Amino acid sequence: MEGTPHSLDNFFKAQSVAVIGASSTPGKIGHEVLRSLVEYGYKGRVYPVNPRATEILGVKCYRTLTEIPDRVDLAVFTIASNLAPDIMEECGRKGVRNVVVISGGFKELGGDYRELEGRMVATAKKSGIRVIGPNCIGVYDSETKLDTFFQSRERMTRPDKGPVAFLTQSGTFGCSMIEWLAESGIGVSKLVSYGNRCDVDEADLIEYLADDPATAVISLYIEGLGDGRKFFEAARRVTPRKPILVLKSGRTERGATAAKSHTGWLAGSYDVYSAAFRQAGIVSASNFEELFDITKAAVLQPPSRGNRIAMVTNGAGPCVMAADESSKYGVELAEYEPKTREELKSKLPPFCVIGNPVDLTGSATSQDYKTAIDALIRDRNVDVMMPFFVFQDTPLDEGIVEVIAQSASQGKTIVCCASGGEYTAKMSSAMESRGIPVYPIPERAIVAVSALIRLGQIHKS
Amino acid sequence: MEGTPHSLDNFFKAQSVAVIGASSTPGKIGHEVLRSLVEYGYKGRVYPVNPRATEILGVKCYRTLTEIPDRVDLAVFTIASNLAPDIMEECGRKGVRNVVVISGGFKELGGDYRELEGRMVATAKKSGIRVIGPNCIGVYDSETKLDTFFQSRERMTRPDKGPVAFLTQSGTFGCSMIEWLAESGIGVSKLVSYGNRCDVDEADLIEYLADDPATAVISLYIEGLGDGRKFFEAARRVTPRKPILVLKSGRTERGATAAKSHTGWLAGSYDVYSAAFRQAGIVSASNFEELFDITKAAVLQPPSRGNRIAMVTNGAGPCVMAADESSKYGVELAEYEPKTREELKSKLPPFCVIGNPVDLTGSATSQDYKTAIDALIRDRNVDVMMPFFVFQDTPLDEGIVEVIAQSASQGKTIVCCASGGEYTAKMSSAMESRGIPVYPIPERAIVAVSALIRLGQIHKS
Repeated sequence: MEGTPHSLDNFFKAQSVAVIGASSTPGKIGHEVLRSLVEYGYKGRVYPVNPRATEILGVKCYRTLTEIPDRVDLAVFTIASNLAPDIMEECGRKGVRNVVVISGGFKELGGDYRELEGRMVATAKKSGIRVIGPNCIGVYDSETKLDTFFQSRERMTRPDKGPVAFLTQSGTFGCSMIEWLAESGIGVSKLVSYGNRCDVDEADLIEYLADDPATAVISLYIEGLGDGRKFFEAARRVTPRKPILVLKSGRTERGATAAKSHTGWLAGSYDVYSAAFRQAGIVSASNFEELFDITKAAVLQPPSRGNRIAMVTNGAGPCVMAADESSKYGVELAEYEPKTREELKSKLPPFCVIGNPVDLTGSATSQDYKTAIDALIRDRNVDVMMPFFVFQDTPLDEGIVEVIAQSASQGKTIVCCASGGEYTAKMSSAMESRGIPVYPIPERAIVAVSALIRLGQIHKS
Repeated sequence: MEGTPHSLDNFFKAQSVAVIGASSTPGKIGHEVLRSLVEYGYKGRVYPVNPRATEILGVKCYRTLTEIPDRVDLAVFTIASNLAPDIMEECGRKGVRNVVVISGGFKELGGDYRELEGRMVATAKKSGIRVIGPNCIGVYDSETKLDTFFQSRERMTRPDKGPVAFLTQSGTFGCSMIEWLAESGIGVSKLVSYGNRCDVDEADLIEYLADDPATAVISLYIEGLGDGRKFFEAARRVTPRKPILVLKSGRTERGATAAKSHTGWLAGSYDVYSAAFRQAGIVSASNFEELFDITKAAVLQPPSRGNRIAMVTNGAGPCVMAADESSKYGVELAEYEPKTREELKSKLPPFCVIGNPVDLTGSATSQDYKTAIDALIRDRNVDVMMPFFVFQDTPLDEGIVEVIAQSASQGKTIVCCASGGEYTAKMSSAMESRGIPVYPIPERAIVAVSALIRLGQIHKS
């Protein structure tokens, strides 16, 4: 990223931004985008453009882009769609090379609007302008604080810096992901919502992010791809270096129809996508929670060396569900080595059930977990440790966080499961801050494990 | 429930409880059960029994059950399993007729322990004692505050009174459910964790709860049934009056094996169970979050009259996922009447996409939602309204809560979807306090809708 500037750099590192269609009315999109740029730490210069205002949010307002007495690295459009081609023309004349079009009212409406989008793109291409959008929420960069979202901070928390880049065709999923990444403490490097994807596409972005030192994991929500070949070729180059995780919607005819009226793109056959994801080393999720769950797993834990799990618990109900679910995902229940069984039998209290799971029962302490995990983690038939916790059970002391953190430091993949209320959330988040992911239900933990197994296979191949 | 006492009454309404195996050591199960009974509002008399203590938690302690100079309505065992048959014998002599056995170390361990459980049960039967457990967390009644859980309040919140009774073979799932019902504000009438189910079973409990005025919805987690015929016959009698919702684990061979070492019961073929659930009018869930989700739906919303949904949104990404998911569950996307389309076109801004979903786009206000929903809810082709919200979108004013509450008052089923962080949680919970359920991802909302459709069919048949 050092040295030669990249044509996408200014989407994230622009030193001056013009908000075209800035509004003085709080709640309006053109007002909130401006606020995101001027009130929360973005260090660049910000220029509102609106012919009917002289100042907005204490910042001098310009009647037109052309009047701005400075170079403009990035223009953000929050204007009526029919004005977009002319403003794009003006951007060209002004020397702007990067534009984010937040406004909707293009291809997603079909007919004349599709043609309108075409004209805007043609104009941009003529001047070598790269465009993100239209019909999107744009860009958030946790490093530069460049932030084009119209979701106010009062309503949408921004995460700290973190290793995940999230790319999304849907702004809505962008809002959910950004808050989940904030709440979980995982953080984000860059988030890009690109809506109708008239120019900059997923392939451009993943190649860019592959070279981004702030990004370790790339996660995407897509409805349909414009240029599938370009995307899969780019993905094939990136996945050996950085995990790519994806959720694809529009799998059914109904979903595809809904996708078309959302972002104007056909969704394509899911079977074809699914096979192509696999070939390109992309791990796919089946719903949005799952995409977040596997993203968290990929960030916190190493890929697994194999598919054999060992469960240990102080309450076995969820392990029954996990055992059921494991079959679906090619996850195997480890058959312990004889010496492991002997060690467990001799060291654990007699009422413990030595199987898979090892059921320590409700009277388990952190020391019991340590005894069990120490034996299991040394077992050559075990690839992944899956501790389940009933944190509500009073005998389980809080030393458990340290026990699990130490186990994790031995290099085998660890994924946990626990659910409940406030206390459980506190304990889970203490574990996650030590790098151990915790999921609320066994099905979600198994999906996370299966993603880590898949990443291990991709890593090897 | 008035008049003649029921043999299960004292599990919930006992006026005196003995804790046999009460301990003076904090963190021990026998200590925490006692604390749950003496420190949190239970109005009955509590008698700790422990030969080596004179007082625990400020309460006089008895050496034996026999020494207690009062009638004992309920005994709770927190003792080593090998002592259980003798103590049960003593209960018989003392005239105790209800016993909760928290302790494990019975059938779930197989071999001699299975025989030990048999002896305890035979002793109980001889004296007409009803037993819940063993290997469980027992009972919580939100009315009487009778509470045998060893999970301290610091670690596990107890819910307020509410319409849900939850029955569970797994204590762990009991802990999760009770906290989810607390956090969501839905509340609980009674929770029973019955573990190995040596005597009192699901059939006994659902028949009892059918007559319980505090219970409107019965929700269960089971691994396997002891007497399937008895259960399904009871369910058939109850479901026309109160919804029964179930999660059954041990669906696969692996799960069944895990279930056996958990509570000592064989899980049985899931296909057979599934068909029997259907015939008995029971709605089944496929994981624990789903069980909670459909329980919430059944509590908050009326059964649906049909299977045609209308989606309205200010961000259509999740609706694409919902459209995909709907096919799986026999949920149809409504085809609006022509007059509805005309009304929507004439009254909504031109950039809105009139389809299913109606996409109001990111600039939507609560008034736009009202316009759309007023038209859709009058449409005879629409059975269920599904509003999706991006609460993060600043143009959406908080009047939306009142708009949706008013729409709900018109009698059609409403299920919502929204996800994000703190602000979204606040808005969602404002909606839920007005009786409108909100789910974080479209898949979970669709499952809730499909449960309400199924309940509508059961209601009609």
